[in-house]
Amino acid sequence: MTLMPKTRVAFLGPVASFSHQAAVATFGQTCDLQPRSSFADIFSELQSQDIHYAVIPFENSTNGSVVQILDLFADRQGKYNDLAVCSEYYLTVHQCLLMRKSSSGKSLEERYSSVQKLYTHPQAWGQCEKYLSKHFKGIERQDTSSTSKAAHIVADLPEAEADTAAAIASKFAADTNDNLEMVAENIEDVSGNTTRFLILKNVKAPTSSNPIAKNTPSPPAKRKTLISFEIDHNQPGALARALMLFKDYGMNLTSINSRPGLVRPWQYIFFVECVREPKAQPCDTAVAQVMQALQEVTENCRDLGSWANQLS
Amino acid sequence: MTLMPKTRVAFLGPVASFSHQAAVATFGQTCDLQPRSSFADIFSELQSQDIHYAVIPFENSTNGSVVQILDLFADRQGKYNDLAVCSEYYLTVHQCLLMRKSSSGKSLEERYSSVQKLYTHPQAWGQCEKYLSKHFKGIERQDTSSTSKAAHIVADLPEAEADTAAAIASKFAADTNDNLEMVAENIEDVSGNTTRFLILKNVKAPTSSNPIAKNTPSPPAKRKTLISFEIDHNQPGALARALMLFKDYGMNLTSINSRPGLVRPWQYIFFVECVREPKAQPCDTAVAQVMQALQEVTENCRDLGSWANQLS
Repeated sequence: MTLMPKTRVAFLGPVASFSHQAAVATFGQTCDLQPRSSFADIFSELQSQDIHYAVIPFENSTNGSVVQILDLFADRQGKYNDLAVCSEYYLTVHQCLLMRKSSSGKSLEERYSSVQKLYTHPQAWGQCEKYLSKHFKGIERQDTSSTSKAAHIVADLPEAEADTAAAIASKFAADTNDNLEMVAENIEDVSGNTTRFLILKNVKAPTSSNPIAKNTPSPPAKRKTLISFEIDHNQPGALARALMLFKDYGMNLTSINSRPGLVRPWQYIFFVECVREPKAQPCDTAVAQVMQALQEVTENCRDLGSWANQLS
Repeated sequence: MTLMPKTRVAFLGPVASFSHQAAVATFGQTCDLQPRSSFADIFSELQSQDIHYAVIPFENSTNGSVVQILDLFADRQGKYNDLAVCSEYYLTVHQCLLMRKSSSGKSLEERYSSVQKLYTHPQAWGQCEKYLSKHFKGIERQDTSSTSKAAHIVADLPEAEADTAAAIASKFAADTNDNLEMVAENIEDVSGNTTRFLILKNVKAPTSSNPIAKNTPSPPAKRKTLISFEIDHNQPGALARALMLFKDYGMNLTSINSRPGLVRPWQYIFFVECVREPKAQPCDTAVAQVMQALQEVTENCRDLGSWANQLS
């Protein structure tokens, strides 16, 4: 009997990050879940098949798209040719204010007023803007590579700085750090603040086992597709023409993002997400048709994958 | 004889910022150019007519849109009803590495290796990514509210930290700080890195004097227009239909940005920029027509202003 190798899944670390939570929810604890320190590392390892899947944050319902991910999808050097989206996961995000454990019996206001420096991931500043401008206006901010990293930093600060620092991170991050306590819960601006994660695979990797296939809902969900393209802006109407094609093939545009194309200034690469009813014609046929039509009106275009809608 | 009040123009400070440079280039030194500490303050003061104009960075050719500005244009609380774009200015950005002046005669590599902390505006990290990952991989990064603020911080650090800190800022910022010297010039990833600034006015303010009108080129430039709208995503094809209208009225789409609408998750506010030849029909008529048509197919839409294209 051959022992199947464990499915390796990478996420943006450290352990206890929101990405880790999303990876656990999607793949369970039986897969080999591995933290990585950058999105670029994750994309490279998936391209080289050192990992089987990647779990990456794509957008937040309050703060918008994660532009670093769009720039990696833009793939301007053609380094990630074989990557595609194969699923998605929605994680409701609650941000909390974490500080070092204190036995002094100080009030919440006293603890707030002692803070001289805040640590968190850049996206989290935007998610907690109202709370921060109310309680921490003008307080020094230190970006960290993740919210869980911010928690680790505050947990490990030298004693002299410990009482004047705070991290914005998840309750989960507090629960896994003996040095930390949660001073304020759910400090995000908008309740229901949700991050959408995409699950990426390598399309050339063997598909014998698909540990997330079992999550496919019944009845069949709508199919989503992500497509990128660049157009010649000197051709009037070129962008409108490209976007019309999606309608022609029964695909409803749900979002458009743009990033600098970096070939010529003020020319963009567009990321279009569309959704299609799981009706008569198979989704793959519609995607193939729209891709063929796009090739006529764009400078280049790329099918970045299709997957089942998980938004209820 | 009545003395005309000096035109007051706000920009994101402090003095010597890129926004300051753009304000000087657009309005000259005879206007009253005033630094402000946040974009929200600038929008508020323009709405209340405490200032006559504002100069704000809108997008960078490498790093993309300034999402804080898009979120202020989204104006989800209806606080900035009377603001509109009236002009634009393109500023070629050169980032430099600034350190405290040293008489030690150290080599460039020695100075690089002494750096333990870097300061700059979040946009600048993205503009200098290649340089930073080559020379300063893993070095602590401190966000500042502007590149010029980063220069001021490094200039004023206590002696003990002075040799291990560096700022990414403009040559202009070094020239105006006696404590600083430029260690490396033009460290940005892409040459020709350009920031586009928009000039905002209050449409209800008296228009007797327009200090930027004299910059209008001859022959007349193409007219640009910025329009925002939200659509009902449950209506298939609604986004494509809205975008097609621009073509119907002779307006060529040049860019699309989206931000979370913040009314319902995963519903967006779209920002469409379009350009139109300055031909027979006046531009204002075309904009009025497209706005009327958009009202039929969108949940809401807003004309954020028209201006003469300054891109050569």
